[in-house]
Amino acid sequence: MSSLPNSIMNDSMKPDYSTAIADLKIRFGQQLSTNTAVCEQHGHTMTWLANQPPDAVLTVQDKHDVAAAVEICNQHHMPVIAFGIGSSLEGQLNAPFGGLCIDMHAMDAILQVNNEDLTVTVQPGVTREQLNHYLRDTGLFFPIDPGANASIGGMVATRASGTNAVRYGTMKDVVLALEVVTANGDIVRTGTRAKKSAAGYDLTRLMIGSEGTLGIVTEITLKLFGISECIGSGICHFPTIEDACQAVMLTIQMCLPIARIELLDALQIKACNQYDNLSLTETPTLFVEFHGTEASVQEQAQIFTEIIEEFGGKDFSWDTNEAERKRLWQARHNAYHASSALRPKASALSTDACVPISRLAECVSETAKDIEASGMIGPIVGHVGDGNFHVLLLVDTDNPTEIATAEDIIGRLAKRAIEMDGTCTGEHGIGQGKQKYMQQEHGNALVLMQAIKAALDPNNILNPGKIWPHPISASA
Amino acid sequence: MSSLPNSIMNDSMKPDYSTAIADLKIRFGQQLSTNTAVCEQHGHTMTWLANQPPDAVLTVQDKHDVAAAVEICNQHHMPVIAFGIGSSLEGQLNAPFGGLCIDMHAMDAILQVNNEDLTVTVQPGVTREQLNHYLRDTGLFFPIDPGANASIGGMVATRASGTNAVRYGTMKDVVLALEVVTANGDIVRTGTRAKKSAAGYDLTRLMIGSEGTLGIVTEITLKLFGISECIGSGICHFPTIEDACQAVMLTIQMCLPIARIELLDALQIKACNQYDNLSLTETPTLFVEFHGTEASVQEQAQIFTEIIEEFGGKDFSWDTNEAERKRLWQARHNAYHASSALRPKASALSTDACVPISRLAECVSETAKDIEASGMIGPIVGHVGDGNFHVLLLVDTDNPTEIATAEDIIGRLAKRAIEMDGTCTGEHGIGQGKQKYMQQEHGNALVLMQAIKAALDPNNILNPGKIWPHPISASA
Repeated sequence: MSSLPNSIMNDSMKPDYSTAIADLKIRFGQQLSTNTAVCEQHGHTMTWLANQPPDAVLTVQDKHDVAAAVEICNQHHMPVIAFGIGSSLEGQLNAPFGGLCIDMHAMDAILQVNNEDLTVTVQPGVTREQLNHYLRDTGLFFPIDPGANASIGGMVATRASGTNAVRYGTMKDVVLALEVVTANGDIVRTGTRAKKSAAGYDLTRLMIGSEGTLGIVTEITLKLFGISECIGSGICHFPTIEDACQAVMLTIQMCLPIARIELLDALQIKACNQYDNLSLTETPTLFVEFHGTEASVQEQAQIFTEIIEEFGGKDFSWDTNEAERKRLWQARHNAYHASSALRPKASALSTDACVPISRLAECVSETAKDIEASGMIGPIVGHVGDGNFHVLLLVDTDNPTEIATAEDIIGRLAKRAIEMDGTCTGEHGIGQGKQKYMQQEHGNALVLMQAIKAALDPNNILNPGKIWPHPISASA
Repeated sequence: MSSLPNSIMNDSMKPDYSTAIADLKIRFGQQLSTNTAVCEQHGHTMTWLANQPPDAVLTVQDKHDVAAAVEICNQHHMPVIAFGIGSSLEGQLNAPFGGLCIDMHAMDAILQVNNEDLTVTVQPGVTREQLNHYLRDTGLFFPIDPGANASIGGMVATRASGTNAVRYGTMKDVVLALEVVTANGDIVRTGTRAKKSAAGYDLTRLMIGSEGTLGIVTEITLKLFGISECIGSGICHFPTIEDACQAVMLTIQMCLPIARIELLDALQIKACNQYDNLSLTETPTLFVEFHGTEASVQEQAQIFTEIIEEFGGKDFSWDTNEAERKRLWQARHNAYHASSALRPKASALSTDACVPISRLAECVSETAKDIEASGMIGPIVGHVGDGNFHVLLLVDTDNPTEIATAEDIIGRLAKRAIEMDGTCTGEHGIGQGKQKYMQQEHGNALVLMQAIKAALDPNNILNPGKIWPHPISASA
């Protein structure tokens, strides 16, 4: 068959993988499950996209399990989808063509911490919170913090980032090397523990963000960072979104080494006040964090105070005491749940976009107006130091009209961001949900991406139907 | 013909590209030269490798020239090599199979500075010094500084870095997006001006460091940085290489935001004393630079003083005055010429390697001993904050025995670095000179690199014979 949109393949059209599954059963026994509930759970998606379960779920113990499974699947041209903890947001884990889900959760060993080099090597099932808990006595930490307690493997796959990215970068910046199982079941290493290299193609960065379509990550070597001697947190309020964005822009331009700078719009603050019983001023608000020595944090806070005063920023309260810092950031941490509570029976669809910071105010304002005009509820929260922001649309997913309205808003946001020389997603990835914007964003660069995909996965078994719709061979 | 090592192809074996050159002449007229001297100049290499000139040199004015030339070359299966200013160090610009050299020097426009976003878009022929001169009144700068005044296009091709990389990263970190002419002459864009994206494969990072083997870069969008309010520079001396490296390691571990930290070994200091008529203590020496506010620079220098005292560091003199800073760094800036003067009639062969910082002292010390045992002269200078260092071997290139000895030293250094979980090159690239170490460093990941090469350049016209020896079709 030729290319099929994900959603229109029904069960009768799916290839029959029973021979492949029988082979996998011989090799893996009880590690393999074809239980319907288990399969549905692994096709689970945190979007409005329909659940598309795999035919079987394999719990792997080590890289050799992964290699053997991929080799069998490749022989049978059976799709393979790696699963971390299931927190991806754009349908990355759905199995539109069926196939095998490889559940990595049991590969959760922290293999080696190198304190002297500030590196750690982990298996892909390790979660970010698990890693930081493990590191708690070393003075080091791993800064990348997407909202969910995601697995490191999943974070590699989607090129994840989060609130610390403005200072510490994204997964693209903190991964030194990967071990990857390729489409034919080979195990390859994509780098070393050296901080930099000019030896050949950057396979590490190619794998990061490829959403499991080029290989399955079985080991990750990460950079770590020292926990600062002093951390200062604060919040301040602005008359308008534009004022808040202007303050962010100047902060970045002045190269203030700010560790976090998050924007919550007035609606989000209102939601937080209701949810946490707070009394924050319901205007656009910045949450910030400074890392450094005590003197440096003090100085950063002073400079930041001067910056925000230029743009009508008010009531800047900040503190270095941990309990007080936590209290100040409480609203930001609970933003997702607070938003959801604005419409308790609705689903919260999270989308994101990223633009050059000079276009941020315009992009956020236009998006807010668009949401308001649609009649939907959609608070905005942003990692605005990077020009990246999220809209959380509260949608009754039983109502097709609402889903269509939400999709339209997301589509207009993607188009708006791309037209501002930005991207349709800063950190959530493409999966199934954002394929329709790839052509506009990348134009003929898509040809290169697809040539790479075909070269590294000639049988198209690695997470097919993600990033772009894929033809898949019917001959299992 | 099948794979041929670069050096054994003689003129009689080269394909005849006269038809292709005639087609290029029709399209480009006086822009195309087949003058022998011009061709030899463009095959120039700063290594011991023999000069392998192209068959013709084309001076391009814009991306459309590049696209048209590549399209013609692709039709004729004629090799294409892009040329910036010719400062690469591993034979990246040689034409082992002949072909067309595309000289990019006239594509030297700075297209757009976005002060608000700290970005700039340039053509590939712009040099790093030209860019910083252009930016001089903006308060912004471009930090990547390989020794030579390289072209930005060439710096993309080799994944260049330099003394500022410890704080500002390498080309991999500061390039936001590229425009690239692909092997069939298409013009594609690999990214946007957004600071981050999770939309599809990271073609930008794939192109960076690919040494012109996957595409020819015609436009580069770079991150810029604010020039710090205050810059402090200093030097200090250590009893041993190990002591100096230990001090570097602790500096990095403490996350001191040091902007530069360079090691010169005792022999290099001796060379500098002779060359610049200085009287520096002839022991391993660190040159450092701090960027920040005045208070922050003061604090960094204070912390650094405490660090070096732990490891016997002495006579730490530092200053924020520009003239005094320049005087302090004079020895570092002249290191290359000072080394060369140790043996005036010899050629200076520069090689580099990079290891995890915990292995740096061991790697540098073993390398110094190896050089000493060989009887060669080879001062060591390093961007040691990244675990990256250079050896400058002073070789009589008319003496085959000396070349062999130098190659052996470089080979042992590459092996040593790789065995320490490092890389055979931190910033010079592979070109022709380091192909022999690719297998040891990458193992079966080479298969992936070569599959990507074959997918994006099926006729193998883009800088063939670089990174690895290549088969090339004889049918022009």
